[in-house]
Amino acid sequence: MAKPKKQPRPKARLPKGFRDLTPTQIAARRAMLDAVRDVYELYGFEPLETPAIEYVEALGKFLPDVDRPEGGVFGFEDEDGQWLALRYDLTAPLARYVAENYATMPKPFRRYQTGLVYRNEKPGPGRFREFTQFDADTVGTAEMGAEAELLAMQVAAFDAIGLPRNDFVINLNNRKVLDGVLEGIGLLDDGSDPVIVEKKLTVLRAIDKLDRLGTDGVRLLLGEGRKDVSGDFTKGAGLTAGEADQVMGFVEAGGNNVIADLRALVGGSQVGGQGIDELSEIADLLVAQNVPAGQVIINPSVVRGLAYYTGPVFEAELTFETVDEKGKPRRFGSVGSGGRYDGLVKRFTGQDVPATGISIGVDRLLAALDALDRAPGGWQAPVVVTAMDRERMADYQAMVAELRAAGIKAELYLGSSGMKAQLKYADRRAAPLAIIAGSDEFDRGELTVKDLVRGLELSKEIEDNTVWREEQPAQFTIKRDELVAKVREALSRHHRH
Amino acid sequence: MAKPKKQPRPKARLPKGFRDLTPTQIAARRAMLDAVRDVYELYGFEPLETPAIEYVEALGKFLPDVDRPEGGVFGFEDEDGQWLALRYDLTAPLARYVAENYATMPKPFRRYQTGLVYRNEKPGPGRFREFTQFDADTVGTAEMGAEAELLAMQVAAFDAIGLPRNDFVINLNNRKVLDGVLEGIGLLDDGSDPVIVEKKLTVLRAIDKLDRLGTDGVRLLLGEGRKDVSGDFTKGAGLTAGEADQVMGFVEAGGNNVIADLRALVGGSQVGGQGIDELSEIADLLVAQNVPAGQVIINPSVVRGLAYYTGPVFEAELTFETVDEKGKPRRFGSVGSGGRYDGLVKRFTGQDVPATGISIGVDRLLAALDALDRAPGGWQAPVVVTAMDRERMADYQAMVAELRAAGIKAELYLGSSGMKAQLKYADRRAAPLAIIAGSDEFDRGELTVKDLVRGLELSKEIEDNTVWREEQPAQFTIKRDELVAKVREALSRHHRH
Repeated sequence: MAKPKKQPRPKARLPKGFRDLTPTQIAARRAMLDAVRDVYELYGFEPLETPAIEYVEALGKFLPDVDRPEGGVFGFEDEDGQWLALRYDLTAPLARYVAENYATMPKPFRRYQTGLVYRNEKPGPGRFREFTQFDADTVGTAEMGAEAELLAMQVAAFDAIGLPRNDFVINLNNRKVLDGVLEGIGLLDDGSDPVIVEKKLTVLRAIDKLDRLGTDGVRLLLGEGRKDVSGDFTKGAGLTAGEADQVMGFVEAGGNNVIADLRALVGGSQVGGQGIDELSEIADLLVAQNVPAGQVIINPSVVRGLAYYTGPVFEAELTFETVDEKGKPRRFGSVGSGGRYDGLVKRFTGQDVPATGISIGVDRLLAALDALDRAPGGWQAPVVVTAMDRERMADYQAMVAELRAAGIKAELYLGSSGMKAQLKYADRRAAPLAIIAGSDEFDRGELTVKDLVRGLELSKEIEDNTVWREEQPAQFTIKRDELVAKVREALSRHHRH
Repeated sequence: MAKPKKQPRPKARLPKGFRDLTPTQIAARRAMLDAVRDVYELYGFEPLETPAIEYVEALGKFLPDVDRPEGGVFGFEDEDGQWLALRYDLTAPLARYVAENYATMPKPFRRYQTGLVYRNEKPGPGRFREFTQFDADTVGTAEMGAEAELLAMQVAAFDAIGLPRNDFVINLNNRKVLDGVLEGIGLLDDGSDPVIVEKKLTVLRAIDKLDRLGTDGVRLLLGEGRKDVSGDFTKGAGLTAGEADQVMGFVEAGGNNVIADLRALVGGSQVGGQGIDELSEIADLLVAQNVPAGQVIINPSVVRGLAYYTGPVFEAELTFETVDEKGKPRRFGSVGSGGRYDGLVKRFTGQDVPATGISIGVDRLLAALDALDRAPGGWQAPVVVTAMDRERMADYQAMVAELRAAGIKAELYLGSSGMKAQLKYADRRAAPLAIIAGSDEFDRGELTVKDLVRGLELSKEIEDNTVWREEQPAQFTIKRDELVAKVREALSRHHRH
């Protein structure tokens, strides 16, 4: 029998757009997810977990960003020839779940779900192909109370994760108001006239590009069209200047009189009036829930997803600026968005089912909190009990067992290295304390505690020529039976810093 | 422009082998993962999260079950022509991570990881293609202290999730002892003689089938071979009867004298002696950690993964039996396994790195606890505040806000249905209580509390002709300002049941 041919060794590396998370990142994420989850459950939302894999045709194309390229999913063929894919968000699986279980579920159905989602797209700096979303949706009611509840809940969730109130605002808009404006310029769309359908779609696409192209760019796309820097020409919607004014009037409305201004813009449009009534009702219900007026604002300039949603839309925006590593100002922008989407299960059942929801971009929110130095959680490495004397293993083990029983993370150094290497290990491990006991210490019933955090401080103070503070040395002796008490004391000193 | 052709509606369904989880299942899983995580962190293990997607060649073939079919992963081609795949366990990503970061990580490196893994295999009843694992591994030390720590930690984790001590045992075995036995019958394998390599592999495969084929079947496979029920013949290892006796002696060793019996079996084999020394050292270290002797037992009949692991192997086994829905006895068997695998990063670096770990099968363990009626967690639906009077929405909202502020899950009924439908909703929702307030109640400053759990009990008592207990009615009136206190009281009554 011939030996199998030697394969070249694979390189140990991650595919682009994926990452390993550190204990600190994991602890922060967990603290955030727990805080949001607790709030959502208080509001009566129940958890749902669906698999990461669905049939491709069940996933469909739900993404609010209409310009998303085709083939943005990770797909694979199943044994029976059917195509499966990794979910790209948590809305599509919800739609499948609701369509499958609608008859038996209590309605309205409030569910939250958090999990990893996958985008098969070109990764970029800070853009990952696997990331975490946290969604909450209410299915089966057309009441604006559902929107008001989601918005109040979102504010409560941001409170719970430690985001200061003046660092975020939730923008509220309504697709129906835009539809009212469009009706005023002859673009009422009942689906029967393909020219109007197409024109309206072009208008929606143009508005959706406000962030990227600004007012002037959108105005060109509402009119004849726009040539981009590369010279490519995008044909516009062909609106007259007056019609484009109407649309831009909607996009630029805001401030204290926004409701009245919008009412003037939509004129006699029924759907437009309904949209304004909805915004007004949500605003009243937010007051009833004690949400301050400035925390959720009616802001028609927030148009992302307007082509997708069918009623109110929301976008949670961070309002502070930080600087990145290169000193450049950095805005985090949107950390959550959502809205009413009554077509949720239509693809499956052909029927409209009222539904509204909101989704948090967990990774972006974590990055923002990190920039604010407000990331939740925090990771503490264990106390390291060094092993100087192999004959004393049982004694060392008793020490770690005592610490653990007291709820203190602790580990025994495993290996045959000398003390220097063991302390270097403890340093690398970012251990707060190392416990040292050789036969002398055992004979005297004592232990040495090395405070590694304090040690680092002292060495810095010496370097910096600052005053030497004798009151808290980096190394001290304790009685064996004081182990738990003294370790706890030293750890609490660190937490105070 | 022509209308786009109508596509047939997709069916809302899950691919085979995948499932949606209910709130109860999710709560139980979360409680279990949290409990295990707390224990692992106390033992100094740090969390790691790697992506679900890796390069196929980085995943390699790490699975302990050697008979696993090829193509058992979900794979897809990346844009650049490289193949990616979903991880099938958490060990292969650990190997990639360690190989990538070995130079800079503190050693020994203790990490735990929990997450979803994927197997592209034929699903069966209770066998899913997406499931949760929970792994802990220690990399970079050859000390048996690592094994002893993992075993003690496993016992502590089972304690923490509420598994009674006499319902589980952890079996301990050692590949090196088997190697010693094989050396005694001339199958010492240094890789130079392909005949011996092949023969030894056949022996390992035969032993690995003990669970399925029993002693007699294994004995046939050690000798000339075995014909299965379908008539297919599997060629055996061709051992003599005496040689097969030696191997079976190892497999069947156990009891109080197991160490001495094994020492006799391996004779003068150096590797065999070393294996027995290791088992003996682990046993001593377990005593030092106060793990009762019967909780972790040396049991050479547990041979799963022996062909894969390079030293001690463990298998956590549930020892109780339950009956399934059809009344048939059901054993859960293995809920966790692991061992020492010094070849962890060899595929990447060519070097042996000592490593040992243990993995919990979370789903199977949850199913087992569920059968014991000991599933952790528990899900409670929210209190439902009904909305009789649309003019009073602000009042209803104030009520749910008060309950939430007191940490009580609560929701306002959203919809325009009548009281009967609202109470039916609360029932379907499994709400413990419904709060009812119409204009009469508001005028009197009162509320009606409907205890839905008690209501169900009473209706059963009436059906069963049991004694009518008047002391706790299913519906009662409270003062508006007693809302939180009375709801809390009623909920605690339920918890006592």
